[in-house]
Amino acid sequence: MPAIRVNRDRLWNSLMEMGEIGGLPHGGCRRLALSDDDGAGRDLFVRWCREAGCEIGVDQVGNVFARRPGWDADAPAVATGSHLDTQPHGGKFDGIYGVLAGLEIVRTLNDHGVETRRPIDIVVWTNEEASRFYPPLTGSSAFAGLLDPADVHRVETFDGTLVGDDLRRIGYLGEEVPGSRALDSFVELHIEQGPILEAEAKTIGVVTRIQGLRFMTVVVSGDDGHAGTLPMSRRRDALVGAARMTLFLDELARTTDDAARITVGSLHVSPNSTSTVPGEVKFTIDLRHPDEATLVALADTIQAKLPELAGTSGLGVAIAIGLEKKPVIFDDAISAQIQAAADELGFASRPILSGAGHDAMNMAPLMPTGMIFIPCAAGISHNEQENADPDHVAAGADVLLHVLLERATA
Amino acid sequence: MPAIRVNRDRLWNSLMEMGEIGGLPHGGCRRLALSDDDGAGRDLFVRWCREAGCEIGVDQVGNVFARRPGWDADAPAVATGSHLDTQPHGGKFDGIYGVLAGLEIVRTLNDHGVETRRPIDIVVWTNEEASRFYPPLTGSSAFAGLLDPADVHRVETFDGTLVGDDLRRIGYLGEEVPGSRALDSFVELHIEQGPILEAEAKTIGVVTRIQGLRFMTVVVSGDDGHAGTLPMSRRRDALVGAARMTLFLDELARTTDDAARITVGSLHVSPNSTSTVPGEVKFTIDLRHPDEATLVALADTIQAKLPELAGTSGLGVAIAIGLEKKPVIFDDAISAQIQAAADELGFASRPILSGAGHDAMNMAPLMPTGMIFIPCAAGISHNEQENADPDHVAAGADVLLHVLLERATA
Repeated sequence: MPAIRVNRDRLWNSLMEMGEIGGLPHGGCRRLALSDDDGAGRDLFVRWCREAGCEIGVDQVGNVFARRPGWDADAPAVATGSHLDTQPHGGKFDGIYGVLAGLEIVRTLNDHGVETRRPIDIVVWTNEEASRFYPPLTGSSAFAGLLDPADVHRVETFDGTLVGDDLRRIGYLGEEVPGSRALDSFVELHIEQGPILEAEAKTIGVVTRIQGLRFMTVVVSGDDGHAGTLPMSRRRDALVGAARMTLFLDELARTTDDAARITVGSLHVSPNSTSTVPGEVKFTIDLRHPDEATLVALADTIQAKLPELAGTSGLGVAIAIGLEKKPVIFDDAISAQIQAAADELGFASRPILSGAGHDAMNMAPLMPTGMIFIPCAAGISHNEQENADPDHVAAGADVLLHVLLERATA
Repeated sequence: MPAIRVNRDRLWNSLMEMGEIGGLPHGGCRRLALSDDDGAGRDLFVRWCREAGCEIGVDQVGNVFARRPGWDADAPAVATGSHLDTQPHGGKFDGIYGVLAGLEIVRTLNDHGVETRRPIDIVVWTNEEASRFYPPLTGSSAFAGLLDPADVHRVETFDGTLVGDDLRRIGYLGEEVPGSRALDSFVELHIEQGPILEAEAKTIGVVTRIQGLRFMTVVVSGDDGHAGTLPMSRRRDALVGAARMTLFLDELARTTDDAARITVGSLHVSPNSTSTVPGEVKFTIDLRHPDEATLVALADTIQAKLPELAGTSGLGVAIAIGLEKKPVIFDDAISAQIQAAADELGFASRPILSGAGHDAMNMAPLMPTGMIFIPCAAGISHNEQENADPDHVAAGADVLLHVLLERATA
């Protein structure tokens, strides 16, 4: 195997060019799933892939597959990729890096005239972030058969549109049945979104596991009332109840262990008027832990404790379970290939746990799946300040290149 | 003075008919200031007033004055009225009752062929509720010279429109300079919005005082972060900080005395996404107390304590003072006239404090001013369940009729 390398500057420049679509004032990106900006980002990616000789496929939930053909027409493809959609105040790397590194690898193989037995597919999964509609990981979930495309089309976005209409509007309502494409394996490259690699001066993280997660939606019900007249003792203030729950959840994570994460990220007050005691509050809980038993115990504690907290203020509470993902353990053989490629290329590495969920979670039950991390500045992500070192960006793509080459020529 | 009475059913029917404009499913009303529905409500009122022989004046901030002429052209008018705008989940009585009782009194005087020396003005004040733009009491504040009409026109509503454009759109951008109209006195009739009159089986409350209030806007600043990766110990979660402040404020009111009211009614999270640690939260504080010294002390405590609470979580906080209203003491002579009318008409009454702010607050420094309360069901207001007894509704209007007649013939 020749130790070919990707073109560091070309990859970096592509990331910067993509980052201009939905660019924010402080260096971040707002390219919400199936928005016009997401459409423009997809269009740019598809154009680049076509220029690199790829064939484009789009499935019924908008997942994009850019295929570099192999010489064996019957061999399942080696797949890589991630997502192009961002958080509302997201960065230029989260997801996008994994997609554009796939493109850079195809361009590099073209530069070197390398042909492979298997095709190489670069995948753009639809709506990983769930910043414009639920659930997160929509595209990969549909590919894995966890969501029905017709149901996805009927999902209402936070803008009040339907996902099916949005797919048609931006030109990514394809005909391919999700999951029908034969894939050999899936390897996803991503920034760590945490501080470990940077702190330990490692360039490559071999991701062995993704922590499990539970999403819950909580509705706290009280009574609207006049802020000037309703005595404190007669209030059923839903926001006071939600505040009590938010502090309890934060404290629960802090007192469990260092691995637990509980976040109230989204909260809506009704009627949300200065002089009205809030009668209803809806909020979300994002709960994560690498150990399934602990995750279940935390979810049980939450389900038991919130009604108790509501009761002390005379409030009602309803808890709905959204997404449930068990911790995922990645394929040992792929992890070994990632480790070997990092060693061969001379990059310091370590095994690592992923705190964030990724589309690779949904591929793991279907095929050999693995993930590669690179450091990101100060571990910051889901934030405009998100950043990465161009050398690390190139190193991760080099490791991915060698893993894909090894699998595509086997 | 003949003991003439208003037409109970006509008044009630007018209230019900007005309640259909912006009517909500559970009997309430949503007629936000300067919305199309507010425009329709004003149009209905103006039509009714014209049919009752009134002359209509509109000032530069949209205050409407429906004048029943008197026989002395030089005599300042006796004024009554309130507001037609509602809370987002408001009722059919808050404000509207005071306006339509004025109309019913004009109709009653017409029925009985009563002429008065002074004109009687029925006033619709613009944006008492501040549910669509700040500040509350906009119209009466401008009349009192506390706001400049040009500044009011430049206020941006929560819908992103400008108040000046909205006034023009609904047809209530008048030319009269606010405050230029000569008024003898102002008497406002309103539902109590509290439980006292009902609990004590009194029909009429003689309002002696309105408690003072402070509105504050608080911005809590932390850092956006990834909910799955950012360790709890490294978070600067603005929502956790805001939750701590909300509970502190609630507890502060409860431990001060029975008269204190502190409400966090409106709260906005940014970026408000399930999997992002919130980097910023904005919320409002509505603080009220009948005693000015206590009000000042509470405001000082809040200003001192919120930064301290923010500091414990490594957060920043900025507090802006919005509206400040000292407690208002109404005119003794008018209160005595209200008391006398209630006695003469045989209605059980008591002196009462207003927990809510009212446009009459802004009239009190300008002219002799008073307020009349009637009971509302279970003290509920700013809520679709808001209700009142038709007999009480008529009784309050009868008392107002006699006070206005006494002043208009003097």
